[in-house]
Amino acid sequence: MTIMMYSGTVDKLLPLAIVTSGAVSMDMEVNIFVTFYGLLGFKKGMVETNQKFIKDFEEFVPMIKEQLKKKNIPSWYDMLKKAKETGKVRIQACSTACDMLDIKKGDLDPIVDEVVGVGTYLAEASESKVTLMM
Amino acid sequence: MTIMMYSGTVDKLLPLAIVTSGAVSMDMEVNIFVTFYGLLGFKKGMVETNQKFIKDFEEFVPMIKEQLKKKNIPSWYDMLKKAKETGKVRIQACSTACDMLDIKKGDLDPIVDEVVGVGTYLAEASESKVTLMM
Amino acid sequence: MTIMMYSGTVDKLLPLAIVTSGAVSMDMEVNIFVTFYGLLGFKKGMVETNQKFIKDFEEFVPMIKEQLKKKNIPSWYDMLKKAKETGKVRIQACSTACDMLDIKKGDLDPIVDEVVGVGTYLAEASESKVTLMM
Repeated sequence: MTIMMYSGTVDKLLPLAIVTSGAVSMDMEVNIFVTFYGLLGFKKGMVETNQKFIKDFEEFVPMIKEQLKKKNIPSWYDMLKKAKETGKVRIQACSTACDMLDIKKGDLDPIVDEVVGVGTYLAEASESKVTLMM
Repeated sequence: MTIMMYSGTVDKLLPLAIVTSGAVSMDMEVNIFVTFYGLLGFKKGMVETNQKFIKDFEEFVPMIKEQLKKKNIPSWYDMLKKAKETGKVRIQACSTACDMLDIKKGDLDPIVDEVVGVGTYLAEASESKVTLMM
Repeated sequence: MTIMMYSGTVDKLLPLAIVTSGAVSMDMEVNIFVTFYGLLGFKKGMVETNQKFIKDFEEFVPMIKEQLKKKNIPSWYDMLKKAKETGKVRIQACSTACDMLDIKKGDLDPIVDEVVGVGTYLAEASESKVTLMM
């Protein structure tokens, strides 16, 4: 599975972590190609403090946060980290977007494996059974 | 075709219904996996009253609503219902997201067939020619 | 590769142009199916004046615009135009969405090749290695 991760909001990072964890438990390989606003979500520091949700459903955010806390649901970051430890998950940052947003490898959390060009993404996506963009 | 339906706004539910209807008319099978904000769009009651559009193009919403009315375009819900009646369309809700948002099967409109884990989605997506997330 | 282009904001049009340019340089064919708000992004005039970014990361937009200018990054439109000139890229507008938004072929920038039904999109997507929606 190859996922182009365009978004940097918690409401997309959570599904990313859930679908990646599910794939790992089914022995699927997952390539995550982080681009544009996704890069902001993977910046050092941001991975743990990010509280951004899309504005379209703002009225539900307090309830969601309460549920996540009450049910003791791990953060997307912890879920993704665990998926990386137990399965084949590679997280790559888009070099063009890094350049556009002035982000260097060192600005990104170590959960990101490398900075690569869009060609690397395309080669992997072409070999994937499932291609998503979120 | 397998669609991960993340969004619950009318501007995404309409394309979902259009693409599903198109697929049915071409004898394609469609699996719709509803997650996160998508679940809000499929809640009982919400399916008919939901007037939410993403905020990014708010200024066009009155014009869009007027056009939909003027051209007598059926609602996404009616389109999707008809697609289900005439073709192979299955609508599944994500169990993890249901848990996170405290939504039970009974809270969802009967157009949703069942609540399943992300593994079911992944198995179906792996067998699909087209995989989308909207 | 087949891309359903739902969005009309610059932050999605840029990744569209980047991924399309990358695909062309790898000799891949790209079909872009423009629907809903995507149509607004491809309207005559809009292709060059459009300054819309999604609202969720508004605080980063001035920095992004400055970077794009400073680094002399071509506009998504110029990138996409060049990709069309050098490779196999077809841009199609969704007929149902055109009807809903009261948009005619003549309202769209000439970079759009034709107006087609969702069936055309589905037939092409079924034959594609990579299917994205952005």
